[in-house]
Amino acid sequence: MQKIAESPLSLEPGDHYGNGGVVTKLEAQIAQLLGKEAAVFMPSGTMAQQIALRIYADESGINQVAFHPTCHLHIYEQMAYSELHHLEGVLLGNPEALFTLQDLESVQGPLSSLLIELPQRVIGGQLPTWEELTAICDYARAKEIKLHMDGARLWECAPFYNRTYAEIAAPFESVYVSFYKILGALPGAALAGPASLIEKARIWQRRHGGNLHQQSPAAISAILGMEHHLPLIPRYVEKAREIASILSKFEEIEVIPKTPPTNMMHLKFGIPKEALEKAVIQIAEEDKVFFPLFLSDDCRTELTVGEAVLDFNANATEYLFSKLLNSNRIIN
Amino acid sequence: MQKIAESPLSLEPGDHYGNGGVVTKLEAQIAQLLGKEAAVFMPSGTMAQQIALRIYADESGINQVAFHPTCHLHIYEQMAYSELHHLEGVLLGNPEALFTLQDLESVQGPLSSLLIELPQRVIGGQLPTWEELTAICDYARAKEIKLHMDGARLWECAPFYNRTYAEIAAPFESVYVSFYKILGALPGAALAGPASLIEKARIWQRRHGGNLHQQSPAAISAILGMEHHLPLIPRYVEKAREIASILSKFEEIEVIPKTPPTNMMHLKFGIPKEALEKAVIQIAEEDKVFFPLFLSDDCRTELTVGEAVLDFNANATEYLFSKLLNSNRIIN
Repeated sequence: MQKIAESPLSLEPGDHYGNGGVVTKLEAQIAQLLGKEAAVFMPSGTMAQQIALRIYADESGINQVAFHPTCHLHIYEQMAYSELHHLEGVLLGNPEALFTLQDLESVQGPLSSLLIELPQRVIGGQLPTWEELTAICDYARAKEIKLHMDGARLWECAPFYNRTYAEIAAPFESVYVSFYKILGALPGAALAGPASLIEKARIWQRRHGGNLHQQSPAAISAILGMEHHLPLIPRYVEKAREIASILSKFEEIEVIPKTPPTNMMHLKFGIPKEALEKAVIQIAEEDKVFFPLFLSDDCRTELTVGEAVLDFNANATEYLFSKLLNSNRIIN
Repeated sequence: MQKIAESPLSLEPGDHYGNGGVVTKLEAQIAQLLGKEAAVFMPSGTMAQQIALRIYADESGINQVAFHPTCHLHIYEQMAYSELHHLEGVLLGNPEALFTLQDLESVQGPLSSLLIELPQRVIGGQLPTWEELTAICDYARAKEIKLHMDGARLWECAPFYNRTYAEIAAPFESVYVSFYKILGALPGAALAGPASLIEKARIWQRRHGGNLHQQSPAAISAILGMEHHLPLIPRYVEKAREIASILSKFEEIEVIPKTPPTNMMHLKFGIPKEALEKAVIQIAEEDKVFFPLFLSDDCRTELTVGEAVLDFNANATEYLFSKLLNSNRIIN
């Protein structure tokens, strides 16, 4: 608590409709961190990303935008990009893998923008190599396609690329980042990019109903979340690799991707959902550890490694998953 | 503080994307208070109202919607109703007065919905009589025009109509209410209406980017704001009338409307802006009272009477405004 009391935050006034105080401070911090001219705080990434793509479509007069089939805009936003903004989505590649330069090259007709999600969450947090990413971005730029990054989990990509956030963001015109996921803050997002884009984005934010009377509580929590979690992220990623390596020894678990580039992965279990759910309760009771599994129908779950998991050593991981699978043997 | 500790709120779990916990509790409370089947919490009224009007337009296949020329949608939302939702606004009456039944009757072509703001903020918080309001609503219903209330300040209307919130809301299909104004809560709004409407509104809320990961802090502050302020509102309105009556004696001040029906009014000063701004500083220094004037170019300001003003008796009001006008005489 000492840190908060000592923080210059305690001297900042509140904002008025996102103007001034800690909100302006957070926006400046994000712009600097991502190496962009400006940034705007928004209540959600859903809002921020639609807005960026809409602006690119209006500027170019082209309503086709490209993204992966598991893009947040395509599967989690009730088709707002089409219903609200009349954009047409072009799906790149197949839903189970990252799209490739070849997938992009095969698109018919012009595109106003290309959205790249780093990492691609729905397929277990996969990341293209830096070379593949650069090749895709170079191609898009040559075709005058605006590049937008869905950086909901950009914070978790830096160890894999061994580059700063600004270096990873450099090929992109605009970047969205989120504050309430690994950073543990109240809901909130930011869109960063050229000053002219951010100025237009503020108008669209107002239109979306996202220019709220007071954003300071969310902005303060975002600043504190970055202060606390960003330095720990390399450790989360390292711990995720350790866990993935242990779990890959169980024949009943498929780890996707095999070597997680970030702190997230998917686990696909080869035993019945009911057995797992029963084991979760037993482990919670006996070991005081709760697995929030949220299993899909095909027994797949997302595992994100955060601060709470840092204290689990390899033995504990092996013991707990062994018990979860109701198995005493480890397949090596 | 005792009240908060004792409150059942402390036992409520948090929400997950607006689902469960105090958010669901707040929605049930609002639906009941407004006598509607259901309600949904949203980050802003800008979002809530566009969504209601869009649903009515889609249901009827009519994109014309009617409202007063000073409607929030028309002057404060960067024309989102047209830019985002492709609705066409029909402006009723002139900007300086309430619109009348006659204004509505003279509309050419069909309307999907009619928005009525109670009270009409930009003209000083005016309210139609119950008879006029009822006549307008009856006409709209007969024409199958859906009635939507902009109830940003509905809380402040009950004393004038001497009716419950549910009674005032009864003629309307849907009602938007705000939590961060007189209730002093964090930003937030609710849309109440038939269950089928609210179900559709949740989909549009997602599309707008307003279905946030966690709404509990805002919902808790809304519940506490209602608990604290709603019982005091008759006193705010009474105090506003006392102040209006005192101010009407100053020849340099025009009170709009002459007899405020709610706790708000506009003041138009007949002396230079600079003189007023100088007096504000002097009064702040000498009397430790700050007038947040926010004067328009024609020296007009909005005065809202809230809790802080309840302690000002008639003598204090007369003294402070006399000093603000730099005048020792009261014109009687």
